[in-house]
Amino acid sequence: MNFRSDNTAATAPEILQAIVEANAADTSRAYGEDNWSKQLDARLSEVFECQVRVFTVASGTAANAIALASAVPPWGAILCHREAHIERDECGAVEFATGGAKLALIEGGGAKVTAAAVEGAIARNGGDIHSPVLSALSISQATERGAIYDPDEVAALGALAGKHKWAFHVDGARFGNAVAALGCSPADITWRAGVNLLSFGATKNGALAAEAIVAFDSRFADAIERRRKRGGHLLCKGRYPAVQLLAYLKDGLWLKMARRANALAGSLGEAAGERLSTPVQTNQVFVKLGDAGVAKLREAGVEFYEWGARGSGEVRLVVAWSQREDDVEAMRGLLASLH
Amino acid sequence: MNFRSDNTAATAPEILQAIVEANAADTSRAYGEDNWSKQLDARLSEVFECQVRVFTVASGTAANAIALASAVPPWGAILCHREAHIERDECGAVEFATGGAKLALIEGGGAKVTAAAVEGAIARNGGDIHSPVLSALSISQATERGAIYDPDEVAALGALAGKHKWAFHVDGARFGNAVAALGCSPADITWRAGVNLLSFGATKNGALAAEAIVAFDSRFADAIERRRKRGGHLLCKGRYPAVQLLAYLKDGLWLKMARRANALAGSLGEAAGERLSTPVQTNQVFVKLGDAGVAKLREAGVEFYEWGARGSGEVRLVVAWSQREDDVEAMRGLLASLH
Amino acid sequence: MNFRSDNTAATAPEILQAIVEANAADTSRAYGEDNWSKQLDARLSEVFECQVRVFTVASGTAANAIALASAVPPWGAILCHREAHIERDECGAVEFATGGAKLALIEGGGAKVTAAAVEGAIARNGGDIHSPVLSALSISQATERGAIYDPDEVAALGALAGKHKWAFHVDGARFGNAVAALGCSPADITWRAGVNLLSFGATKNGALAAEAIVAFDSRFADAIERRRKRGGHLLCKGRYPAVQLLAYLKDGLWLKMARRANALAGSLGEAAGERLSTPVQTNQVFVKLGDAGVAKLREAGVEFYEWGARGSGEVRLVVAWSQREDDVEAMRGLLASLH
Amino acid sequence: MNFRSDNTAATAPEILQAIVEANAADTSRAYGEDNWSKQLDARLSEVFECQVRVFTVASGTAANAIALASAVPPWGAILCHREAHIERDECGAVEFATGGAKLALIEGGGAKVTAAAVEGAIARNGGDIHSPVLSALSISQATERGAIYDPDEVAALGALAGKHKWAFHVDGARFGNAVAALGCSPADITWRAGVNLLSFGATKNGALAAEAIVAFDSRFADAIERRRKRGGHLLCKGRYPAVQLLAYLKDGLWLKMARRANALAGSLGEAAGERLSTPVQTNQVFVKLGDAGVAKLREAGVEFYEWGARGSGEVRLVVAWSQREDDVEAMRGLLASLH
Repeated sequence: MNFRSDNTAATAPEILQAIVEANAADTSRAYGEDNWSKQLDARLSEVFECQVRVFTVASGTAANAIALASAVPPWGAILCHREAHIERDECGAVEFATGGAKLALIEGGGAKVTAAAVEGAIARNGGDIHSPVLSALSISQATERGAIYDPDEVAALGALAGKHKWAFHVDGARFGNAVAALGCSPADITWRAGVNLLSFGATKNGALAAEAIVAFDSRFADAIERRRKRGGHLLCKGRYPAVQLLAYLKDGLWLKMARRANALAGSLGEAAGERLSTPVQTNQVFVKLGDAGVAKLREAGVEFYEWGARGSGEVRLVVAWSQREDDVEAMRGLLASLH
Repeated sequence: MNFRSDNTAATAPEILQAIVEANAADTSRAYGEDNWSKQLDARLSEVFECQVRVFTVASGTAANAIALASAVPPWGAILCHREAHIERDECGAVEFATGGAKLALIEGGGAKVTAAAVEGAIARNGGDIHSPVLSALSISQATERGAIYDPDEVAALGALAGKHKWAFHVDGARFGNAVAALGCSPADITWRAGVNLLSFGATKNGALAAEAIVAFDSRFADAIERRRKRGGHLLCKGRYPAVQLLAYLKDGLWLKMARRANALAGSLGEAAGERLSTPVQTNQVFVKLGDAGVAKLREAGVEFYEWGARGSGEVRLVVAWSQREDDVEAMRGLLASLH
Repeated sequence: MNFRSDNTAATAPEILQAIVEANAADTSRAYGEDNWSKQLDARLSEVFECQVRVFTVASGTAANAIALASAVPPWGAILCHREAHIERDECGAVEFATGGAKLALIEGGGAKVTAAAVEGAIARNGGDIHSPVLSALSISQATERGAIYDPDEVAALGALAGKHKWAFHVDGARFGNAVAALGCSPADITWRAGVNLLSFGATKNGALAAEAIVAFDSRFADAIERRRKRGGHLLCKGRYPAVQLLAYLKDGLWLKMARRANALAGSLGEAAGERLSTPVQTNQVFVKLGDAGVAKLREAGVEFYEWGARGSGEVRLVVAWSQREDDVEAMRGLLASLH
Repeated sequence: MNFRSDNTAATAPEILQAIVEANAADTSRAYGEDNWSKQLDARLSEVFECQVRVFTVASGTAANAIALASAVPPWGAILCHREAHIERDECGAVEFATGGAKLALIEGGGAKVTAAAVEGAIARNGGDIHSPVLSALSISQATERGAIYDPDEVAALGALAGKHKWAFHVDGARFGNAVAALGCSPADITWRAGVNLLSFGATKNGALAAEAIVAFDSRFADAIERRRKRGGHLLCKGRYPAVQLLAYLKDGLWLKMARRANALAGSLGEAAGERLSTPVQTNQVFVKLGDAGVAKLREAGVEFYEWGARGSGEVRLVVAWSQREDDVEAMRGLLASLH
């Protein structure tokens, strides 16, 4: 049983089929001038109910780094949670792409950023020539702890960002899971709440390799386009990432898959009962099992990551779009047996 | 008829099939720890007849930039031809990845670098603290003019690189076409001739999106791995680039496709006759048509790039792995009609 | 009365005189090839009792950033205290110079780094491809809280750095004050204790503008030299920084001035009594005065910085090499009156 | 006899005296908040007859790199002459500071950039996503061949820069020599002619170490200030560079010294007669002596640089502000003897 990560899953059949079909076309213009790539702006503008610009890249790390580098100066600081992917899991990609900007770290439960915590970070910044300039706020939706920000929470942060003239970026590696959980319009937790830039991830939720930077503010577009090129993320055969995204969005496939994963994760949360570290809101489940519990899971052949501090006895279980129901059932049994 | 570039072609059926098959597997470890990715070092070590390390990336630009940045210091200069892809077509990707290294440009027919031209560049370098340190030599195989370096030519450059302790890099966006044309072992024009790093391109010759840095010298491996991660080129679903490369190499598919494209290009060269700018050695054909000839091609609905200086009346015709023979036949007729 | 910082002081007469004398010479070779610059390696090798390489730069920020960038890869992390100058006061100079390395922050009293705290930071590092590679340890001697590391403490950290193959760097903006306080050989708290690189500051302790990177390990020398040049810190008229350092070191001037400042600071510490935040070890005095005390100092016309969190009521008083004794006496009276 | 470079000269007595006087003041605010630094904007605004912002840095390389990095994006290209200091003598400082921008090189006699040559460079730029974006034009006044641009020539380039929305930068390492030779207002060859940024050099013409970025366009000011800080060029004891510049400009000292050097260089030019490579316009003299002539100069104990291609038999003689007249006389004799 594999609950290691949703990035270990295969590609959804609808998305693979779209690739196969696009391949049947003979030649197509390179570097995003193909007919599919040219549909992306319009398609995502529909989804987000406003005019957006879309830039596909090969990974979520690339999306985050290029988006943020296009929005902050090298002497900027980016406010984010201490557990944010850009801080913990990208080996300094943002620092590289920005030419040495800093991340200003914020604490908080559920890996969530609160307005109060942001105010604390403002107070810690020297505010003079010797200190980096607070220039952007980046949150993850859903967070690295599977938590979500509702529209009001995003809007509160967006207001703060607007007040300070920061760029407001959302790392949406699991954006589909968040939208599915919230049942809101994608617009409600992005531009309507003050978000300027979104890393729109599809890979974890069923694509082969399709991530995109969605720019709600066109002033960032030129920089994103140039940084994508220089980062080696402007693919010559642009049709393939494009058709993945088009298929992902078609007939609500992305939300259908996300809802399923969320629901299965929720059922694991129920089974975990009091051992749950944080409420399950999307497709990630954090459970405090203790050393014995961890060992028992390993004996049962489950694949997963231990989480938090080393030896904490906490585990993360991620439900993928393709997770088999009997695996979830078996895991429920295992979790129940650990009470 | 599309002779614009081999990067406008679709994916070869064998390679697409490999993707479909890999998708049938349920989960697989992320970030290159899957079973296919783990075969790459061994498989390419066979192809190159020596122990190599392989790092897949999303584009040839990424391969070039990450390879070179892993081999030269920020104060280094990279010797390359003025028409090299890294100079003309990557929007400064190498400069970005290296933290500001310089390209030291070399002139020469067929976009080829000669040892004599390299000596000239050495003489132009100040050789003191005020000048960048010549640190690498990068050639394209085949070149941006479709020319190839035979093993002796590569070895002569390799000896020069070795003497000066430069890293020796080959941009192999069309490496398959070069090997097919030379009929040599891939080893003969790489490590046996002093090459340390190869950007091994498969996309132009039939892959969906599969490029790899092949390191013949393990001392570069750690830097490549880290730079790939920070550049957003370590894909989570690593199985997909891996199976593309495995299929590309299986049963000599890569050389079969390259030979076909080369042969068809050669037949265009014959048809072009005296109008040919340079002898056709691989799958690119450069023809001096004059303004009238260019116009005639456009009228005939041919897609292609004008080349060289603006208004030069020179065109580039690239034959893709998938080029239809009747298109080639038609183009032969067109070229013949321009005599 | 000015207790704001030792960097507000003028230049010591002996050092200014050395500049005037060097000016009497007509021409001298540029870019460090002059006769004074060429003495620096030998002179500091005497001071440090081992063969060193010396690189003058225009500021302490430049010394820190160039030294560290020469010792860590862009994907490296540098362990340092949260209150370190490189973290709090250089606007991301290290991040810029390194091409985006990260600072891994450590907590601890007196702005000191302990081996135990370093072990904690090691445990927090993921240790995989997704995490920056711990590559250097940087401490300040004296610290930003005026504390010092004795030879054993430095050696303990040096052993840790050696074990993990990290570069060990000391920010010695107030190195003279530390050596004066410890009464040890400069060697005892540098190379004998495992230090590889020192930012040797003279400006705060009486120079006009003279900072130097002292490399105890010659493997860093080439990178430092190149990075200094590219950073615009290789001055053409190299005689002037050189003679400042030579005069600074002549007949123990540097230690004489540092001892005086330390002693005066110590007498302030006595006057502060229980209000002292931390014991006075060098020329910085941290006192908890409360809002009323702060206001009283301001009314008395004292210049100083408030320290710590905003509104903490804590102040920093720095005694410069040139501090007038009657100012110190007056300040003692003020501090005593606040009990 | 030393005709190697004006950067081998000492400091003018008036400037040294200003340093000595500034030292008599006790303390002064750090980081440019001192009373002298605060006069710089106003003083240079007078000199340039418009409101300017002034940023002192430690070297001309720093001035050029920081100015240009503040005006072009990382994906920009800076048009400059192939012999420009930023291309040939700064070891890639601009590439480092910009995060990897490119220099687009222009040919032309006297190391001068002409509008026609710039048009050629525009034609060579691809103008698409694969090519760097032409973003700035940088010229040297006087050039590396001692030539000057008159106001009309600068204005023609300024018009071109304006048309293409490029930043227009002047490397004024020998700006005083140019103004002295032209007899114009400094305004005539800067902002009135479309210049946005000037590296205003004083060191070669008599300062100890004083270079400044003069911004005629305030939109660059914030970036310059931040980049100066991060580059370690915001000195704590700011009074010293400030008083150098104030003394340099006082009562026309800078022009007096430059006129003298220019005149002496002119007399060398007369003595060189037909062997002169280019007309002498400022304080640099380029003479084709042939191998025998070069040897004869060396035998006579003259210090100088050979110039141009190796073994070209061409030499550069630079007259410093402090050059002794008898040395010039002796050199005139030597040059005359070589006819």
